[in-house]
Amino acid sequence: MNYGMVLKSLGILLICEAAVMIPSLLVAVICGGNDAKAFAITITITFVVGLVAAMVKPKRKNIYARDGFAIVAIGWLLISFFGSLPFVLSEAIPSIVDAFFETSSGLTTTGSSILNDVESLSEGIIFWRSFTHWIGGMGVLVMTLAILPSAKPGMFQIMKAESPGPNPGKLVPKLGQTAKILYGIYIIITIIEVILLKIAGMSLYDSLIHTFGSVGTGGFSNKGLSVGSYNNIYIEVIITFFTLACGVNFSLYYQALKGNIKEIFKDEELRLYLGVVFAAIILITINIHGSTFRGIGESLRYSSFQVVTIITTTGYATTDFNLWPTFSKMILVSLMFVGGCAGSTAGGIKNVRIVLLFKVIKRELLKIIHPKAVYTVKVGGKAVEEESLMSIASFFFIYLIIFITNIFIVSLDGFDIVTTTSAVAATLGNVGPGLGMVGPMGNFSEFSSLSKIVMSLGMIIGRLEIYPILLLGVPSFWKK
Amino acid sequence: MNYGMVLKSLGILLICEAAVMIPSLLVAVICGGNDAKAFAITITITFVVGLVAAMVKPKRKNIYARDGFAIVAIGWLLISFFGSLPFVLSEAIPSIVDAFFETSSGLTTTGSSILNDVESLSEGIIFWRSFTHWIGGMGVLVMTLAILPSAKPGMFQIMKAESPGPNPGKLVPKLGQTAKILYGIYIIITIIEVILLKIAGMSLYDSLIHTFGSVGTGGFSNKGLSVGSYNNIYIEVIITFFTLACGVNFSLYYQALKGNIKEIFKDEELRLYLGVVFAAIILITINIHGSTFRGIGESLRYSSFQVVTIITTTGYATTDFNLWPTFSKMILVSLMFVGGCAGSTAGGIKNVRIVLLFKVIKRELLKIIHPKAVYTVKVGGKAVEEESLMSIASFFFIYLIIFITNIFIVSLDGFDIVTTTSAVAATLGNVGPGLGMVGPMGNFSEFSSLSKIVMSLGMIIGRLEIYPILLLGVPSFWKK
Repeated sequence: MNYGMVLKSLGILLICEAAVMIPSLLVAVICGGNDAKAFAITITITFVVGLVAAMVKPKRKNIYARDGFAIVAIGWLLISFFGSLPFVLSEAIPSIVDAFFETSSGLTTTGSSILNDVESLSEGIIFWRSFTHWIGGMGVLVMTLAILPSAKPGMFQIMKAESPGPNPGKLVPKLGQTAKILYGIYIIITIIEVILLKIAGMSLYDSLIHTFGSVGTGGFSNKGLSVGSYNNIYIEVIITFFTLACGVNFSLYYQALKGNIKEIFKDEELRLYLGVVFAAIILITINIHGSTFRGIGESLRYSSFQVVTIITTTGYATTDFNLWPTFSKMILVSLMFVGGCAGSTAGGIKNVRIVLLFKVIKRELLKIIHPKAVYTVKVGGKAVEEESLMSIASFFFIYLIIFITNIFIVSLDGFDIVTTTSAVAATLGNVGPGLGMVGPMGNFSEFSSLSKIVMSLGMIIGRLEIYPILLLGVPSFWKK
Repeated sequence: MNYGMVLKSLGILLICEAAVMIPSLLVAVICGGNDAKAFAITITITFVVGLVAAMVKPKRKNIYARDGFAIVAIGWLLISFFGSLPFVLSEAIPSIVDAFFETSSGLTTTGSSILNDVESLSEGIIFWRSFTHWIGGMGVLVMTLAILPSAKPGMFQIMKAESPGPNPGKLVPKLGQTAKILYGIYIIITIIEVILLKIAGMSLYDSLIHTFGSVGTGGFSNKGLSVGSYNNIYIEVIITFFTLACGVNFSLYYQALKGNIKEIFKDEELRLYLGVVFAAIILITINIHGSTFRGIGESLRYSSFQVVTIITTTGYATTDFNLWPTFSKMILVSLMFVGGCAGSTAGGIKNVRIVLLFKVIKRELLKIIHPKAVYTVKVGGKAVEEESLMSIASFFFIYLIIFITNIFIVSLDGFDIVTTTSAVAATLGNVGPGLGMVGPMGNFSEFSSLSKIVMSLGMIIGRLEIYPILLLGVPSFWKK
């Protein structure tokens, strides 16, 4: 482990976090809440701590995979901690455990909340809460790389560890340029959604809050009834479209900008993603039609919004899907595990991994029928190495093991099985709401501190796709 | 596909099934129920159909993996169908769907039941219902191999397809001999348990019923309250011991008979199995102590019985664990997936696969830390081939996919999530009872015919470890 470089990178990260808090400070000052002081203090502390660490002069400048994982893992724990200070200092969320939960939930774009009454909070605090979705969506460290003047080649390891999906690639040879392109696309999408939501009837402030929540696929709202409080079909369509779009691999947008439209429709992951969305909408529409909603149009409206916000792990709600029939609920729970595409802002296991799994299974069946034949698994016409397939398989098992371990710990609180299991699934998959007590009209406030900490870590583990945080617990990871 | 050999083998199998129904016929005659006729008719039909098929003269005598899978898959569907005839003809279970469910549940050693009042059934029918556990436990086709005078080498494929676990081996070079040894050990264990249960206070008939249920790890009882109806600690200890013992790989008993005691304790699968049992008993004892039961002794008594009957996928109950705290219930549900050891009569995913998965995960973490090092996964000191690891990984995914697919179909019935999910898990894992409506004091009678058929297939899929039944749906599987 190159401790010097790790420390220095963490310092730079904290300086960046202090910087991204400035808009929230401005909102607090403009809207005149008494939370401006909390932001000012947090920014100062975060900046000073960051500066001290950033001044370290490392002996070696190399960053290997291991260092990248360490920077990302510790970095995310740190920014969640420092990011929770405004909530604690402004007394919006006096408990540090609750504030840490809310901040991890924001940064990881989960959207689970411990707040009983979100509408009572001041504008600055709510702005920061939602803005964490925006910066967490594309990645805090990717942002650092976009801002830094000279990104070293070794820093690719950092980007790899933070970006969702099994094989994040560079769009262009230069890493800093890749990060800039990704953020450029992200900013354009953000601006368009803000404008459209404003036109559809939201205030500018609400447009910003809900844009951060949808492009980051987070799901925090400033309304107690979430998007349902507007009861506006244009707003729902806009949010559905943008969350769906942000669940797509951003590199496809880069291809589109370069004119490679054909490439996009050839993408097997995108096809599975859209196929699953389409199938789930149809099945749920049929299932809730008649039982929960009257008209087929109304059923389609609610099912399409809910399917898209759940599979993209956004978690906005326009209705209490807790009350839907078991079949529809089971589909929604399954979508929580599937998630979006690699290289998107969405969470979950990711569609590309599901594509590969199905291909591995198909090969296994063919092998039994023709034991002597040799089969390779291909994606997009390219053979996938056996080692990569094994990595993806391992990813699934670790995902399951962490899922089960978290369920055991959270089940000690004694809530019912559906609440316990769906709370763990919704946090690990960065979805937000679950079922039962943590359904779209509920929240996570009743859990014990232990469960809240476990689920906060679960959100970070889910966002960083497990390995970085898990490696922190392996002794040989820390060796020099 | 060698259709001639497949047909001939299926014929022999049906003749064997007709033969194993004779004890039930005798019980029916002796106990004087009006079900003797039903058995006589079934035995005649099964024997005649079997004889006609067995008279086929195949052109080639080779049996390849594919043929083995076909024989096992179709064979299990057939014996479940013919085995359900006594229930239908005696009108004990008039519905053919229900009778098929009950028979598959018996043969696969699941123990899930659609009966509302088991105590109202006649002795012959109950005997047959429990005897299916006994013959299904070690394997109907393994029995055929043990009986047949000359087992062809190619028939190893049949044994491989029917025996639980990723790599069933031969104990001795000769296949028929291996099958005879396995059944020999099985019969000895059976006789000892019958004698002990008789001494502990059961009638001979009840001893036989509960021995079939425990050595086959099935769980059918002739009492409405299952083993709990005796409220006898000696009976509970005996059943706990024998179910635990039958969840162990039978080849270890062969090693023990040969004097290789050391080999047994070196077995990594056995160590995980016993470790999980021990840990689960301790955790549940602590959890239910105080909340559900008064004394620590009472808690230990109920937790140890329940942990062992669930992990061995037997499913006997001495109390309604549906009422236990969420933590204990989640542990029991997890044990349903783990199951027993390879080469035992138990169901589930099997401990050896879990051992390998943990090793694959460990390797994945080490690979990140030392990207250039080469690691092989070893079990019992021997390196496991990458291809075998991939097969085991695929097995998990298919298991999960079938689990989820079955949940979707069963959820259409509209029962609550816990009932739906646990019913599917309990049938696929060959456990028996689940939670909610299908808890130890409930049954499966309320489900729709579609759900019952899906869960019956689920039981057979679980018992045959997925591939045989799944391959029936692959077109190229059927090619000549």
